[in-house]
Amino acid sequence: MSACEFESLEKCLESHLPEAELSEVKRILFGKETQKLDLPPCAVSAASERDFELKGFMFDAAQEQLRPPRRVRVGLIQNRIVLPTDAPILDQINAMHSRVGEMVEVAAMCGVNIVCFQETWTMPFAFCTREKEPWTEFAESAEEGNTTRFCQELAKKYNMVIVSPILEREGLHNTLWNTAVVISNSGRVLGKSRKNHIPRIGDFNESTYYMEGDTGHTVFQTQFGNIAVNICYGRHHPLNWFMYSMNGAEIIFNPSATVGALSEPMWSIEARNAAIAHHCFTCAINRVGTEHFKSEFTSGDGKKAHHDFGHFYGSSYVAAPDGSRSPGLSRTHDGLLVVEMDLNLNRQISDKWSFKMTGRYSEYAEELTKTVRPDFKPNIVKE
Amino acid sequence: MSACEFESLEKCLESHLPEAELSEVKRILFGKETQKLDLPPCAVSAASERDFELKGFMFDAAQEQLRPPRRVRVGLIQNRIVLPTDAPILDQINAMHSRVGEMVEVAAMCGVNIVCFQETWTMPFAFCTREKEPWTEFAESAEEGNTTRFCQELAKKYNMVIVSPILEREGLHNTLWNTAVVISNSGRVLGKSRKNHIPRIGDFNESTYYMEGDTGHTVFQTQFGNIAVNICYGRHHPLNWFMYSMNGAEIIFNPSATVGALSEPMWSIEARNAAIAHHCFTCAINRVGTEHFKSEFTSGDGKKAHHDFGHFYGSSYVAAPDGSRSPGLSRTHDGLLVVEMDLNLNRQISDKWSFKMTGRYSEYAEELTKTVRPDFKPNIVKE
Repeated sequence: MSACEFESLEKCLESHLPEAELSEVKRILFGKETQKLDLPPCAVSAASERDFELKGFMFDAAQEQLRPPRRVRVGLIQNRIVLPTDAPILDQINAMHSRVGEMVEVAAMCGVNIVCFQETWTMPFAFCTREKEPWTEFAESAEEGNTTRFCQELAKKYNMVIVSPILEREGLHNTLWNTAVVISNSGRVLGKSRKNHIPRIGDFNESTYYMEGDTGHTVFQTQFGNIAVNICYGRHHPLNWFMYSMNGAEIIFNPSATVGALSEPMWSIEARNAAIAHHCFTCAINRVGTEHFKSEFTSGDGKKAHHDFGHFYGSSYVAAPDGSRSPGLSRTHDGLLVVEMDLNLNRQISDKWSFKMTGRYSEYAEELTKTVRPDFKPNIVKE
Repeated sequence: MSACEFESLEKCLESHLPEAELSEVKRILFGKETQKLDLPPCAVSAASERDFELKGFMFDAAQEQLRPPRRVRVGLIQNRIVLPTDAPILDQINAMHSRVGEMVEVAAMCGVNIVCFQETWTMPFAFCTREKEPWTEFAESAEEGNTTRFCQELAKKYNMVIVSPILEREGLHNTLWNTAVVISNSGRVLGKSRKNHIPRIGDFNESTYYMEGDTGHTVFQTQFGNIAVNICYGRHHPLNWFMYSMNGAEIIFNPSATVGALSEPMWSIEARNAAIAHHCFTCAINRVGTEHFKSEFTSGDGKKAHHDFGHFYGSSYVAAPDGSRSPGLSRTHDGLLVVEMDLNLNRQISDKWSFKMTGRYSEYAEELTKTVRPDFKPNIVKE
């Protein structure tokens, strides 16, 4: 069985394990069982007609006396590229707009309040090629580009906050960035969050194209909760999640593009660890499918030149502060994951575990400040 | 099936999943398959006679041209208490010395270089009772206590570094600490590492007994590698792992005592996330069994008073920097996990993923310093 044929971990476990053991396995692996969310039949049939997976789950919180529940529905979209990578740029972008647009329409039927797309969602993940042309032509203004305008229309139409991760061109200085544009449900561009950590690994030659972000750890206060965006490789950096949390993030999105051979065993660990450690929800999104490029390229691994860099394994999921997580979308198909979460859970779990109060952050601030000095002497005891 | 009957996740998967799917499931859950380590027949039969589980695994690294392999064998010991909790204190301590001593002897047969015991290994985890007496009588001097002397003998006899987590009494001021004593294979006390973060959750009333550690993030340079100890609740704090790594830790031990209902779904996430994020090995150790106390106690959860606080689920394991992990020891039995690791893997994975170089620590030092000020203004964008 090849890695791009295996559809989903959860499905495999459910079809082979006896009931009693299955429930223990799921408890250990995924925590408290997430309830299924009833989705409207019109959404279910639209998803089926449009050939994408639709799944819904719910994270509940205890009823409090003084606060009403703060239930929010979040949508995660994962998808393949639509046209071949050598189709005209504008056709490729328009085809992605059209595909994602029809998925967002289904999200609206499901009552989604905040939707997030995958990393650089309007384009193939072409950084493996190290060619500047034609790929930099996919870059757009975060504030005024066609893709942002397209998202603003969707946002207004569906009263939905949209997180739109694109390749950004800042036109005045022609700098490129890997940027998530956050659009309010009013249709206004709330702001943007640039990728803080840029990989130099395997075919992820992104440092060839853009630099580390300069927008810090901005949190966006929306009508539906405080959200932040930790883009792709930033999920490997615990301090990045931490700092979004210190700025008040209740939901942190992690739009990504990553392939099986490189990162799959880490995928279920990192975003989930962040949800646990920071008493918040995290949403991990990965694209699916294999993207083929016309020019062959090498991967710095001594192997022959080739035209693709493996299978993007999807598996988008949501992790909760109580250590539980939703099942993932499939490893192989386009999908929309709808998750209802009661944000009251964040404070309830914080009051239970108290990581923020037991964190000793002042001491870490001092230690870290010493650590980064060129004359830092590590605290090593020798015999 | 109750939580204390379910023996092990890995065993369950192995006995029910078809071969092809099992290998995909294991790849996704556990990463690159860890090879089994051949252990000497005398050790296997001694473990069987002494009624504990013995498992061995190996993490290999690529052969380099300029550096020879740096292969180290680490032993993780998990065990039940031996005598009832109302037996005389000295009898309880002696029984634990004797039990762990016979397990260390088997570790020596397996060529273990560094062994780590579970948190406060000489005593029941009695902090649930909130009684000071008789439990504080288990506290000993880290430098000169009987337990340290016992470990020094073992260390010399077997040429083994020993990490011995105890309840420490600092006699001059009668302060108590939760402390790991690190004893060199020469028999010398190299130093100690006090628990940095103290829980206030459920039955873990440890803040009633001792305060946050004052030994910082010390790393111990031993003949077999640079080691550090992140005790129990410290594993929930990403900055704690991070700071041990910044001080040069190659292997971080996490001796713990934790129960199923509270933390089991987090168990496989946190130490493993740290190994990935910091390009090092982490060793998570949990005790096993259910401990009964004579006085009944309540748990602050509105339920009736009771005499135990649930099942310690064992499941000790080792996580590697490449995202893989060893299978765990059982959830139900005493056990010794022997893991051979080539420490060259740390640098190899660091050179591949480069988290330390892409970490932007100077910027985090500045941000964190601002964050901990009373006048900190979070970076929140509002509409």
